[in-house]
Amino acid sequence: MLGARRLLGALRLCSSVSCPRPRATAKLRVRDALGVQDASGECVTVQGWIRSVRSQKEVLFLHVNDGSSLESLQVVADSSFDSRELAFGSSVQVQGQLVKSQSKRQNVELKAEKIEVVGTCEAKAFPIKYKERHPLEYLRQYPHLRCRTNALGSILRVRSEATAAIHSYFKDNGFMHIHTPVLTSNDCEGAGELFQVEPSSKIKVPEENFFDVPAFLTVSGQLHLEVMSGAFTQVFTFGPTFRAENSQSRRHLAEFYMVEAEVSFVESLQDLMQVMEGLFKATTEMVLSHCPEDVELCHQFIASGQKDRLEHMLKNNFLIISYAEAIEILKQASQNFTFTPKWGVDLQTEHEKYLVRHCGNIPVFVINYPSELKPFYMRENEDDPQNTLLLLTPVINGQLANLETLTPVLYGRLADLETSSPLYAGISLSALFHVAYVFYFFIK
Amino acid sequence: MLGARRLLGALRLCSSVSCPRPRATAKLRVRDALGVQDASGECVTVQGWIRSVRSQKEVLFLHVNDGSSLESLQVVADSSFDSRELAFGSSVQVQGQLVKSQSKRQNVELKAEKIEVVGTCEAKAFPIKYKERHPLEYLRQYPHLRCRTNALGSILRVRSEATAAIHSYFKDNGFMHIHTPVLTSNDCEGAGELFQVEPSSKIKVPEENFFDVPAFLTVSGQLHLEVMSGAFTQVFTFGPTFRAENSQSRRHLAEFYMVEAEVSFVESLQDLMQVMEGLFKATTEMVLSHCPEDVELCHQFIASGQKDRLEHMLKNNFLIISYAEAIEILKQASQNFTFTPKWGVDLQTEHEKYLVRHCGNIPVFVINYPSELKPFYMRENEDDPQNTLLLLTPVINGQLANLETLTPVLYGRLADLETSSPLYAGISLSALFHVAYVFYFFIK
Repeated sequence: MLGARRLLGALRLCSSVSCPRPRATAKLRVRDALGVQDASGECVTVQGWIRSVRSQKEVLFLHVNDGSSLESLQVVADSSFDSRELAFGSSVQVQGQLVKSQSKRQNVELKAEKIEVVGTCEAKAFPIKYKERHPLEYLRQYPHLRCRTNALGSILRVRSEATAAIHSYFKDNGFMHIHTPVLTSNDCEGAGELFQVEPSSKIKVPEENFFDVPAFLTVSGQLHLEVMSGAFTQVFTFGPTFRAENSQSRRHLAEFYMVEAEVSFVESLQDLMQVMEGLFKATTEMVLSHCPEDVELCHQFIASGQKDRLEHMLKNNFLIISYAEAIEILKQASQNFTFTPKWGVDLQTEHEKYLVRHCGNIPVFVINYPSELKPFYMRENEDDPQNTLLLLTPVINGQLANLETLTPVLYGRLADLETSSPLYAGISLSALFHVAYVFYFFIK
Repeated sequence: MLGARRLLGALRLCSSVSCPRPRATAKLRVRDALGVQDASGECVTVQGWIRSVRSQKEVLFLHVNDGSSLESLQVVADSSFDSRELAFGSSVQVQGQLVKSQSKRQNVELKAEKIEVVGTCEAKAFPIKYKERHPLEYLRQYPHLRCRTNALGSILRVRSEATAAIHSYFKDNGFMHIHTPVLTSNDCEGAGELFQVEPSSKIKVPEENFFDVPAFLTVSGQLHLEVMSGAFTQVFTFGPTFRAENSQSRRHLAEFYMVEAEVSFVESLQDLMQVMEGLFKATTEMVLSHCPEDVELCHQFIASGQKDRLEHMLKNNFLIISYAEAIEILKQASQNFTFTPKWGVDLQTEHEKYLVRHCGNIPVFVINYPSELKPFYMRENEDDPQNTLLLLTPVINGQLANLETLTPVLYGRLADLETSSPLYAGISLSALFHVAYVFYFFIK
């Protein structure tokens, strides 16, 4: 749809004269070019990086990718265009006619009339090699180039779609977006180890403290959001969050993005669970429908079975069990756990994974948590501890959650219901959604 | 439109029995309730905070606001509902029938059948007083309550809309969203004073440096975006940015949000200016159409004439002048400047303001900046300094830009054109959009 609409808009630039004459052509993204139905010689220009070159006696085939999709556009050119510079990794601008492809492998291809090499690429110096599938550990050395590989490209497209979907979901459901501050003097609920912020040592600051008080990087926007929900009823934030945990594991990141939402006037946990389930499903649906090839790539090469699991989750209602039921299920499990499950003890990752499997790989809300359990992200409620309920959505899938650098993962842990003080004049239900995009790049 | 659609959806919950019997009613945001055309007794529930109470002999009028719009919903109730608890600031849940209002002041009103006080508010202790317009300086003392005032509520709604519009604009124009890291070891282009990040002193870290190298808060995501544009062609980020400038002025914030975009394969400055103008116009249009009352409030009470200026800018194409022309205009100005304008010297705020006025209060791109001028945000281009062009969009309106806590302001300064190294295989045009939301709360 987008492709067609865009093409129409872009083609207005095209003159109606026959193609070989010099004229303004429509610039088209590869994704949009690939989406054109019934191509019939439209004059277009496509720009991107060469992903493959196949030189035959009379014809030259190039695959050009501009990052807008996993799939590349096939360019068919007369062999007279062939040159050393038309090599894997070079960037080119190709002008030509978009035509129906003879091959079944693609709908359309670009019949080149003009090929311009914008930037060359020295194959020897270039760490990414043609037709090679490089291990992620190898690619880690090249953060400035690895986004040109299929795997990393797919992850970043999925992440971009998921980000857009999160914003859309909340907007469509009447939530107001709030930028909660990153620099803060509160440590929220003692949610984790803090990073402290000072002006760099090069700066001479007369005062002892730049901010008058010690300043930290936020561990959660929850407290600020609670305030905002006391004016706007439904609010959310989706920003960077920081934990100074000195752990090199895949599950501990110094910097990650977190979705948090707060809703006033909530009457039951059901209201909250509806938002969470809706968010998860809307985001997943958008990713599956906008990036089907990227999801397929993960499915085939990275996290086998992932697509099926996601579709399975979309089709089913999330389950709700009580903490007591969860403990019962775990006690009766045939599996041996490292941590013995018992009442009054927090659920471990192994328990969460088991519960999800036990429930048919559908996300599970664990409600009616004993109020004595106060995990790191939980706010103290001194007024009335009995009012505190904890709502826990276990890791949706253990395998997903542990795939570093691979998939945006809904790693949900949910939050405390509390009656706020009369000054805030409302019931605030703190809904803390951790959307921990386990993939994070450039942080070391 | 939204209101109607939502109402229809929500009314499915309504039973068809006549109203007085207990039944499930549709929960409606105030904004949606106000948008209902031809209300005819739909059973709804509205929740929010009381903004005014008017008690007559037989009728009680309440205005209820839930932050979804500046306007409140009028609730008409039998005087038997009157109670001390129904006071300014209390939060209520009102169930009743949505009917056409007799008064011309509003389309619809809610005929109350049930009023429940969710949270009371002690008028004496509550720092915001009924019918009083509090100065912003006074409200600064109550960051947890000030968002319930008209002025701050409007700003935050506008900001939320602007944020959504920025994401939409880029998505609609084929840009990929990238979360550039906040923690970084680079200082970008020496863009400003850095904040350094260390684990809080409470944490015992065996290594001298938590991150192996000194870590700072980002001053710009430009370098990371440039890398990404070498794979995805068009990318953007919209995240928090930090400057440790020890200045207490309204124009220096320790933390602010910035839109940055990078585009590969750009052939002329025109391509870039088109994106900038498009972004500004799309965002402004969305804010004007989605928050007309909020804009009107600013127009009337905060920044008089602002709405007209924005509409004026929307109607006109942005202007383009060269740096040389700009200097000429300034030299011929009748105004006395604190800094004498001359070739080779950067433009000062007073110059920018004058240029915008001179050009009829339309944003102006100043192009062909001498390459010797390297302001803080400009990247060194050692390969070919002559290739460096600077593009400057002056502050759109001096008055706007100086209104702390009032309006999201496009404070645009734009960026350097450079031919990137062959390794990156493309032309990268660095488009640095500063959308400095001058309003920032909770930082101190």
